[in-house]
Amino acid sequence: MDETVAVTRTLARYVVDAQYSDIPSAVRKEAVRSLLNWAGCAIGGSGHEAVDRALLAVKPFAGAPEAGILGRRERTDVLNAALLNGISSHVFDFDDTHLKTIIHPAGPVASALLALSERRPMTGEELLHSFILGVEVECRIGNAVYPAHYDIGWHITGTAGVFGAAAAVGKVLGLDVQQMTWALGIAGTQSSGFREMFGTMCKSLHPGRAAQNGLLSAHLAQQNFTSSDRVLEAPRGFGFVMSADRDFNEVTKEFGEHFEISLNTYKPFACGIVIHPSIDGAVQLRDEHGLTADMIDRIDLRVAPLVLELTGKRTPRVGLEGKFSVFHSVAVAIIRGAAGEPEYSDEIVVDPVVTGLRDRVDATVHSDIRDDEAHITIRLKDGRVLEKHVKHALGSLERPMSDFDLERKFLRLCEGVLQREQAERALDRFWSTESMKDAAELTMVTVPA
Amino acid sequence: MDETVAVTRTLARYVVDAQYSDIPSAVRKEAVRSLLNWAGCAIGGSGHEAVDRALLAVKPFAGAPEAGILGRRERTDVLNAALLNGISSHVFDFDDTHLKTIIHPAGPVASALLALSERRPMTGEELLHSFILGVEVECRIGNAVYPAHYDIGWHITGTAGVFGAAAAVGKVLGLDVQQMTWALGIAGTQSSGFREMFGTMCKSLHPGRAAQNGLLSAHLAQQNFTSSDRVLEAPRGFGFVMSADRDFNEVTKEFGEHFEISLNTYKPFACGIVIHPSIDGAVQLRDEHGLTADMIDRIDLRVAPLVLELTGKRTPRVGLEGKFSVFHSVAVAIIRGAAGEPEYSDEIVVDPVVTGLRDRVDATVHSDIRDDEAHITIRLKDGRVLEKHVKHALGSLERPMSDFDLERKFLRLCEGVLQREQAERALDRFWSTESMKDAAELTMVTVPA
Repeated sequence: MDETVAVTRTLARYVVDAQYSDIPSAVRKEAVRSLLNWAGCAIGGSGHEAVDRALLAVKPFAGAPEAGILGRRERTDVLNAALLNGISSHVFDFDDTHLKTIIHPAGPVASALLALSERRPMTGEELLHSFILGVEVECRIGNAVYPAHYDIGWHITGTAGVFGAAAAVGKVLGLDVQQMTWALGIAGTQSSGFREMFGTMCKSLHPGRAAQNGLLSAHLAQQNFTSSDRVLEAPRGFGFVMSADRDFNEVTKEFGEHFEISLNTYKPFACGIVIHPSIDGAVQLRDEHGLTADMIDRIDLRVAPLVLELTGKRTPRVGLEGKFSVFHSVAVAIIRGAAGEPEYSDEIVVDPVVTGLRDRVDATVHSDIRDDEAHITIRLKDGRVLEKHVKHALGSLERPMSDFDLERKFLRLCEGVLQREQAERALDRFWSTESMKDAAELTMVTVPA
Repeated sequence: MDETVAVTRTLARYVVDAQYSDIPSAVRKEAVRSLLNWAGCAIGGSGHEAVDRALLAVKPFAGAPEAGILGRRERTDVLNAALLNGISSHVFDFDDTHLKTIIHPAGPVASALLALSERRPMTGEELLHSFILGVEVECRIGNAVYPAHYDIGWHITGTAGVFGAAAAVGKVLGLDVQQMTWALGIAGTQSSGFREMFGTMCKSLHPGRAAQNGLLSAHLAQQNFTSSDRVLEAPRGFGFVMSADRDFNEVTKEFGEHFEISLNTYKPFACGIVIHPSIDGAVQLRDEHGLTADMIDRIDLRVAPLVLELTGKRTPRVGLEGKFSVFHSVAVAIIRGAAGEPEYSDEIVVDPVVTGLRDRVDATVHSDIRDDEAHITIRLKDGRVLEKHVKHALGSLERPMSDFDLERKFLRLCEGVLQREQAERALDRFWSTESMKDAAELTMVTVPA
């Protein structure tokens, strides 16, 4: 690309100038689906001990209780609400995925915006527009550095997410181009999060801090707190320091011609997305043949290379680790016919029936198998061999979750947090985001009555 | 090294087990000098617009005003006080330097501890011990990855500092070894800060956020918020993700046999330390020969390689940028005989007399010249040629600032913020840190009467 292009400033100018009327209706619809899916995850995760512990830690320092936390009764300041919503929405590993980059786009951006909406009044349309733009920013930046950036060990949802949160909040605050450029710079110089943290509470901390830090960055920029104007493209900026390769054209090309949120996908299973085709195939074979664990001699998977790299844990000891074990996931999918949050409890990953079958699951990687594809072969004790080739897992772009699938997922996630009636009301309100006069309502409807 | 060593846990255990009685008195003395030098910088920088703007940005979200900000009358919550003290103490680029790594050690650690001392009562001895340990942690981690980590573009004061703040606060909170290991992990996964930000307000944001994030990390760990146990040594942890080279022996060797704070140095000049030998030589020649700008035809510097890399700005436009210009620094040193904060104002960097001389300064780098060394040659219009070889700049380990030098620097930094009498009282209290019953007094004595 032309090296004289001011990448960061060009991106900032796009966000500042963007008009909601230019957003196609299909893009708006996908944004609502993303929000709804994110909110379900946040409500479902709101009682997780990671959220409890984070809340206890920040409580002594928290400010005016202006903002709610989805699914909880406590209120806290806007910055901490963004943090806590970011944690709860990711703690089940059940949120959305931008497959091109493995970014979970909604967490950093929606967590910041919903928290802010309780202090800084905004319409649903305004929230939706900022959300679309924030997702656009984080995913474009992700596109520019993926996969080299991810391969080094960066958790891209945190590292790219902080830019998205800053841009979205900056749009709501009405920053000018210089301030928006600074907001991206302030956000970028806080970009952080190691993949080493996968399997610990810090994995969810990443989108939480990305939301909180992006929110703060936009407010600092609003006060004319200065940063470099070239955080993305400078030789000592994000693209070079945090990645072995980068293509800045991905950041600046074809504004308004496509929207990254159109590429967003939603998980039917509460674990790392690379395991989904294997689980999908296992559930299908189970249902087709009425399989139980004791019928099975062994299970062989042929999977994409990332599967064992990301989810190769042979012996998960706690629920969180189970999400990074293709072996546990396939075993539990056979036994329970599902891979929702209950299938990743601390108890179930050490259940002898589950571990017994888990130890009879094997997997080999093949470089010609795509990320959303898997071959599963089950050998039964009676000698039969069952096979399933999943070409595209449920939840992929080719086999997307329907609105009905999303509603069912949302309502299941609300179980134990909201009464059914309230959960349905919340669902209804999220579908109506675009016409909402006061977007703060979105958080309020999720607070247990 | 033995690859089975649990680097992070070993470091955590050292911090948890450390006893103040094992700290040699010379080390304690250097810690007091470091604190005093840091406090002077924080008081002096407390009125800087970077601090004003950051305070305005965080104010709407701030919690109970439990903690003071050095040199200011406002109070805020402990986390934000850490942030603001970290910003103010670095904003003049006048704070301490661990020359082996170019870390400014006090900022992240002292900013967190002094803020915490107003909420969590601690004695001066307790504060001093935690401070020494925090500095030990950040500098050992810095030693393990310097220079490769810095060369990539990381601002090491931010990236290593966050570990130091977490360790120091964790010590005060009485974390056990597992919690301390988590605190380092939570801190590490927030490690951030680009050198690209040099010359902008974000440079000072780095130690401020390092202090604040380290403080939060220790409180999260206290609530058993989990992280990886191997943030330093894991293949996707700090040492590999953020550096092209690393030696973990530097983290774990010879605990208690030496202390990194003994290697701390203090700046006589308010700018990047690599310019100091050139300024030192310029001031010496000026004083020896009564030089004025109009006598000078040209000035030629022979300097260490880092000088032009870090401070090669030919045409600084604002004061902050002047600190990254060896050309401006030498010119203003000749004209004013000093390079304190007033010599880096927005006005003086565009003053025609200064820019006129600045444009007659040239510099060449030589790989055999050390960082604290410089050769300066001044050609006068009358044909004379003056030369000075600075073997070790004032403020280096070989020519350290005396206690008297530090006091003079502290009092000058207090000018315009504290009345002389109060500044002298504050100085006295900082010298008495070790015997203080309540370390919160340290902040209180710096609040303008």
